[in-house]
Amino acid sequence: MKNEMFDIIIVGGGPAGIISAITAKKHTKKKRVLLIREINRGLVPCGIPYMFFTLKRPEDNILNTDSLKENKIITKIEEVIKINRKKKEILTKNSKKYKYNKLILATGSIPMTLPIEGVNLQGVYPIYKSLNYLKNLKKELKKSKDIIIIGGGFIGVEFADELSKFKTLNLSIVELLPSLLSNSFDIEFSKLAEQQLIKRNVRIYSGLSVESINGKEKVESVLLSNGKVMPADMVILGIGAKPNISLAEKSGLKTSKFGISVDKYLRTSDKDIFAVGDCSENSDFFTKEKTNIMLASTATTQARIAGCNLSRNFFNKNIGVLSSYSTKVGGLTLSSTGMTEKTAIKNGFKVVTGNAESFDKHPKKMPYAGKIKVKLIFSNQSGVILGGQIAGGESAGEIINIISTAIQKKFSITEIESLQIATHPKLTPAPTTYPIINAAQDALEKINWRAK
Amino acid sequence: MKNEMFDIIIVGGGPAGIISAITAKKHTKKKRVLLIREINRGLVPCGIPYMFFTLKRPEDNILNTDSLKENKIITKIEEVIKINRKKKEILTKNSKKYKYNKLILATGSIPMTLPIEGVNLQGVYPIYKSLNYLKNLKKELKKSKDIIIIGGGFIGVEFADELSKFKTLNLSIVELLPSLLSNSFDIEFSKLAEQQLIKRNVRIYSGLSVESINGKEKVESVLLSNGKVMPADMVILGIGAKPNISLAEKSGLKTSKFGISVDKYLRTSDKDIFAVGDCSENSDFFTKEKTNIMLASTATTQARIAGCNLSRNFFNKNIGVLSSYSTKVGGLTLSSTGMTEKTAIKNGFKVVTGNAESFDKHPKKMPYAGKIKVKLIFSNQSGVILGGQIAGGESAGEIINIISTAIQKKFSITEIESLQIATHPKLTPAPTTYPIINAAQDALEKINWRAK
Repeated sequence: MKNEMFDIIIVGGGPAGIISAITAKKHTKKKRVLLIREINRGLVPCGIPYMFFTLKRPEDNILNTDSLKENKIITKIEEVIKINRKKKEILTKNSKKYKYNKLILATGSIPMTLPIEGVNLQGVYPIYKSLNYLKNLKKELKKSKDIIIIGGGFIGVEFADELSKFKTLNLSIVELLPSLLSNSFDIEFSKLAEQQLIKRNVRIYSGLSVESINGKEKVESVLLSNGKVMPADMVILGIGAKPNISLAEKSGLKTSKFGISVDKYLRTSDKDIFAVGDCSENSDFFTKEKTNIMLASTATTQARIAGCNLSRNFFNKNIGVLSSYSTKVGGLTLSSTGMTEKTAIKNGFKVVTGNAESFDKHPKKMPYAGKIKVKLIFSNQSGVILGGQIAGGESAGEIINIISTAIQKKFSITEIESLQIATHPKLTPAPTTYPIINAAQDALEKINWRAK
Repeated sequence: MKNEMFDIIIVGGGPAGIISAITAKKHTKKKRVLLIREINRGLVPCGIPYMFFTLKRPEDNILNTDSLKENKIITKIEEVIKINRKKKEILTKNSKKYKYNKLILATGSIPMTLPIEGVNLQGVYPIYKSLNYLKNLKKELKKSKDIIIIGGGFIGVEFADELSKFKTLNLSIVELLPSLLSNSFDIEFSKLAEQQLIKRNVRIYSGLSVESINGKEKVESVLLSNGKVMPADMVILGIGAKPNISLAEKSGLKTSKFGISVDKYLRTSDKDIFAVGDCSENSDFFTKEKTNIMLASTATTQARIAGCNLSRNFFNKNIGVLSSYSTKVGGLTLSSTGMTEKTAIKNGFKVVTGNAESFDKHPKKMPYAGKIKVKLIFSNQSGVILGGQIAGGESAGEIINIISTAIQKKFSITEIESLQIATHPKLTPAPTTYPIINAAQDALEKINWRAK
């Protein structure tokens, strides 16, 4: 039997894989596109923290793949174990072979674990993107009381927020850095997140590491770097993920600790193979240095670029990862894009910041009007926007994308000060106090004074 | 007594006047800035439709002017009746004179009336921005039953939406154009607004004009152009406004029917006098032709530009009015920015449109997730974004500003397709189906097929 031939094969069924396949297919309808993945029912990655309380059933977080069918993409549930780059074919665990003309690797990431004692005890849970695994975690939650979350990044904070809705749990977060969400927010915004969690009885141990996890078969306690021993029925590891590069490595593609090496068109060291999403190397938008940011939104952007690059007759560039995030902690939405002030300074930028506070509806007596606080970071030399952070109501989750859009096209401080925006009493801050604009004006005022 | 001297005088206390004054003062702290206005307690213009039901008390819509005091701007409540341009001084109704170095006119607009019989009858209400007038309107509402709103633009639609909450009223809108909100939305979006109003028992008479308003002292009925006579206790005129240029005219400044003539730096025909907001001529962002768009958000943008131009040593350009709007009709948020498809075609652009539908939270089973629909309009020649329209939940009110930002810096279709955005289950659509991105991809697909 001849090996089945496809124009394009995508390995991986997460957001990056799905969007690569759809983008490729949309633009080359006649070509045969195969998406091959290991599991049938994947999960929405960022929905995972919400499978325990917010969503009615864990199954509600299954990644919708109807779009694959609608776009006539062939799918197979198989594990790819090798790429034969010479023959341009992939080999699966069931010994099937499929030939490709172009291949996209979207093999994702695997959760990191800690190099400490006790990390393999029962009751220690890295966050695997597996429905059954997380259903089991949910079941175990009901029997638990003392829960330690290791890692105060987005995963850790969102798990703490979600689990704080179970009033019977004692929740603690342990974070190595001095504050929560420290990679994405300056301290004044991190503090707001921490206040929300503290209000919900989550205890925060920052600036500390976990020395060991203790217990016989099952976790019983955790030892912190300050000598404190904390009782624990369950430990959740929210310390991030690393790129899943084993298939690429075995197949002789160039890789680094940041992932599968790619050029700015997302081609690997083999020009017929692209890599996108968590498994691929990312560069920072500003510094162009390699970074280990992993985000579904970044992954899908890369997927669209790669999907375009292999199916159209021009090449789209990957401009680098912007790091745009939103989260909700308690009643507060926190959003960040680009560089924080501290990251910018660490990277040698001279910065000027602008701050503004307003209400997210207007006049402020409108029903449901809440406070919103914006910080913008500009280059003090070029006047170009470098980053922004917001704390406010749910609308902050989209307002951050205005800033994100502005960063991608290097808006200047005066361009943001004179931005034209749609406003409405029930929907947005007032045009007179629109906080992005006022924050730019605040920064401009500082530049003016400095120059005098 | 010597006439009092100011570095900068602003005439007008609406959003444009306030923001001009603050911007000017922020950047030249030592200079004396006077804001002179006719009434002490102005109103938030876009909040006016919500003074009848949504806001607890009409007083809740008073424009907050604390920022004037905070910024040490001198204010006076007086009517300016003349500018003596030679002496560079203004004369008030109380015969006071104030000298200026630079003057900003922010005299606003006055509601239009109809050149028909009966327009001055009791019970016919143009929308004046006056607290007492609108409090009286609210009182009269309680005695009314049949209410005819003339004009199906934003004011008319928002009044209809707000008044539909009084279940005792029979509400009708009469609109000359074939659909409501027709200047800002293509027909498929206008229809969604109409459905919301119809669901709330508002009757819509589009493609019709009012021939006369009938009654003895008080309005009794309205005659439509199709011969229909409609009983009416109250008629609300929501047909727009015209620039208030009388002071400028009397003072010999150049004006047109679009307002006080200004150059792209917002200087009038007298280089020491600027004009901003509703009273000044606006140009369209795309066609550079004069337009009568009047928006508080546009007015404040102009105010920031003029405030900067007279107080700093560089000149900011006014890039022209983008026309970005949001409104909420019933449970639906409708937003628009830039050109509609029909406006673009009317102006000679060749366009390609892209459409996408998604949910505003993800996965779609997240609590409160609702549908969102986006249409983008691109130039088919340059690939540059020309406009966008959204129908969805409240987040549409900020998502439109992402498109608005993209238009201001001429994003291309592929730049929008590969936009990096922050996403979160509780706050935004999924990264895989973010509707702005998918609409760009949809448009790109059409271009690809056409090119083949």
